[in-house]
Amino acid sequence: MKLTRRYRLAASHRLDVPSLSVAENRRLFGKCNNPHGHGHDYVLEVTVEGAPDDSGQIVNRAELDRLVEQRILQRLDHKNLNTDVEELKGVVPTTENLAMAVRDALLKNWPLQVRLSAVRIAETERNRFELAI
Amino acid sequence: MKLTRRYRLAASHRLDVPSLSVAENRRLFGKCNNPHGHGHDYVLEVTVEGAPDDSGQIVNRAELDRLVEQRILQRLDHKNLNTDVEELKGVVPTTENLAMAVRDALLKNWPLQVRLSAVRIAETERNRFELAI
Amino acid sequence: MKLTRRYRLAASHRLDVPSLSVAENRRLFGKCNNPHGHGHDYVLEVTVEGAPDDSGQIVNRAELDRLVEQRILQRLDHKNLNTDVEELKGVVPTTENLAMAVRDALLKNWPLQVRLSAVRIAETERNRFELAI
Amino acid sequence: MKLTRRYRLAASHRLDVPSLSVAENRRLFGKCNNPHGHGHDYVLEVTVEGAPDDSGQIVNRAELDRLVEQRILQRLDHKNLNTDVEELKGVVPTTENLAMAVRDALLKNWPLQVRLSAVRIAETERNRFELAI
Amino acid sequence: MKLTRRYRLAASHRLDVPSLSVAENRRLFGKCNNPHGHGHDYVLEVTVEGAPDDSGQIVNRAELDRLVEQRILQRLDHKNLNTDVEELKGVVPTTENLAMAVRDALLKNWPLQVRLSAVRIAETERNRFELAI
Amino acid sequence: MKLTRRYRLAASHRLDVPSLSVAENRRLFGKCNNPHGHGHDYVLEVTVEGAPDDSGQIVNRAELDRLVEQRILQRLDHKNLNTDVEELKGVVPTTENLAMAVRDALLKNWPLQVRLSAVRIAETERNRFELAI
Repeated sequence: MKLTRRYRLAASHRLDVPSLSVAENRRLFGKCNNPHGHGHDYVLEVTVEGAPDDSGQIVNRAELDRLVEQRILQRLDHKNLNTDVEELKGVVPTTENLAMAVRDALLKNWPLQVRLSAVRIAETERNRFELAI
Repeated sequence: MKLTRRYRLAASHRLDVPSLSVAENRRLFGKCNNPHGHGHDYVLEVTVEGAPDDSGQIVNRAELDRLVEQRILQRLDHKNLNTDVEELKGVVPTTENLAMAVRDALLKNWPLQVRLSAVRIAETERNRFELAI
Repeated sequence: MKLTRRYRLAASHRLDVPSLSVAENRRLFGKCNNPHGHGHDYVLEVTVEGAPDDSGQIVNRAELDRLVEQRILQRLDHKNLNTDVEELKGVVPTTENLAMAVRDALLKNWPLQVRLSAVRIAETERNRFELAI
Repeated sequence: MKLTRRYRLAASHRLDVPSLSVAENRRLFGKCNNPHGHGHDYVLEVTVEGAPDDSGQIVNRAELDRLVEQRILQRLDHKNLNTDVEELKGVVPTTENLAMAVRDALLKNWPLQVRLSAVRIAETERNRFELAI
Repeated sequence: MKLTRRYRLAASHRLDVPSLSVAENRRLFGKCNNPHGHGHDYVLEVTVEGAPDDSGQIVNRAELDRLVEQRILQRLDHKNLNTDVEELKGVVPTTENLAMAVRDALLKNWPLQVRLSAVRIAETERNRFELAI
Repeated sequence: MKLTRRYRLAASHRLDVPSLSVAENRRLFGKCNNPHGHGHDYVLEVTVEGAPDDSGQIVNRAELDRLVEQRILQRLDHKNLNTDVEELKGVVPTTENLAMAVRDALLKNWPLQVRLSAVRIAETERNRFELAI
């Protein structure tokens, strides 16, 4: 059985590849290349998979929330993804790269009994990314 | 092709393992252990899988709705999950156990030509459970 | 300028007027009269009205949240509205009466500079109640 | 990694199998068989799958949008599915058949580097169809 | 106190003023002028205003629903607004005119104790119309 | 009759009053004071009021959209509210100040026949601001 739990984080970013020309960056990223950045309310979904124990739960919600709070929200929420996040240094802070950073931060020394099954990030209502694990 | 159809049901429950201490129940379930119960508007999604027939449908919607109405909604909607539902007697009425009870009630003598593919229950906007079948 | 802020609370209730017959209660409340209660995820909206100060805010969000947390959520969230809430003793815990209890609890010794302008409670996606103040 | 992108299209249709009787069509399609048609705001989701390139993107959003705009939205949005869409001639314009027509129009000479992974169409909030590819 | 109750109706329409040229109709209505019509899932909200009675309700939900079902949904849901609705004959079936037709059908011999306070119709997620009464 | 039309804009901001101490700014704005900014997907609603003309419309949607596009979206969407927007220079770019800037930009030489009736901006799902006009 899978449990998907939803979190929110507000962050700013600017999409730009330094080695490319202004025109090429504009073509690649459109308005997301605007020089002073912009922002989003990202919706993060974390899916875990396991069997219910005697308490009828596959995971203690408070423990899962604490993990996501410590490893992800405290480091990304209300931050600038270009300057404030260690793992995103040197890469373009697209939602693709953000999703991989979130997955890696959760997977490393994953402390819960349930399996981490997927990470999903919606950038806006029109765009969402999913990493099956 | 898969069709997912969405239903709603309002129910109350209290999460408590009788063999555990008050403190342990509190740790396991937090506010969901409050003594007089609370409630949710559950969102139930039923996914069926099949190929369209000559009428261009994989299942008659009215037949699927009738099945879910009779087997699930009439027995769970506007009910108390601790006291009113036969299959949940003796287990903690978590959404995990609720999802398994719904799946079992649907699967038993499943009368439709399409395959039952998944059952999903969202407890709140932040929490959803999925059982692939 | 008005600011509307949204909160969520899960609670159970049973709608029943003791002085009326079983049939009359059934006619009045339908499934909401089921004997062991059911529940909802209520959405509470609190609207305040004022002019922005030098910080560009009409109210400090943290102060408003603390007020709603202390006066409303701690007393109503994950509770049974028939048994757990002092102000609802002796009345039918409909969303109408719930909205009036929330308004009264907020209005009494209202400590903020902004005016309380409205209280809104949605029982489900299909039903919402509004009290202008 | 999968990217799902969401589009909207408003269209009208009438569900009717000419070779069946009025009563049989009524049984099969209910109100959707009403003689002068009705309509929906369909939500179309297109899922593509691939690995991020050096720009941190698995696909250029503008290119994907242009493809969906040209092949799907320009031909289906604000149209009558019974009369205006070549591929739906001769079939009942159910959402099942609509989803297959959308998939086929996208798959034919698919010009992007990413793989087309799924097409999903929601007819209403209660109904959605998914074609894995 | 106000209660707002939400209903859904799917319908098709074509926007066209017969006395105007093709170009003028195109300018006025854009894609909504496409010759064979299109459709929407309209969201109708009906707001009533009154004081709770001894049962804690300002109106019996079942009575309000029956009224809206009989006067509005049975006549408009899954219909073609250009051909199937008496009151819309001779006018362009815009959502503005639809809202006025719904208000008039409800107001005429309004049978409930509560006052009809507003009618709202959302054409899509981006567009909604409100008639205060 | 009122028409409310919804637009979206993604922007970044940092909330900080230069004349106040770090601690005081932290107390006032919480995480919104983080030094490198963050962002939101704002939802803007523009409400106009008028009577339908012979075409059944109170305003031409395309004209209203063009006005909002030119005066608001082109100048605010995918921008940094601290650095990129002339009217917000010298004020804290809270949603309160953003709403007033949007209202002023629309009201000045308002070119449409309908009256501008309200401007609403939702910062997140939990927060929305309304300016009646």
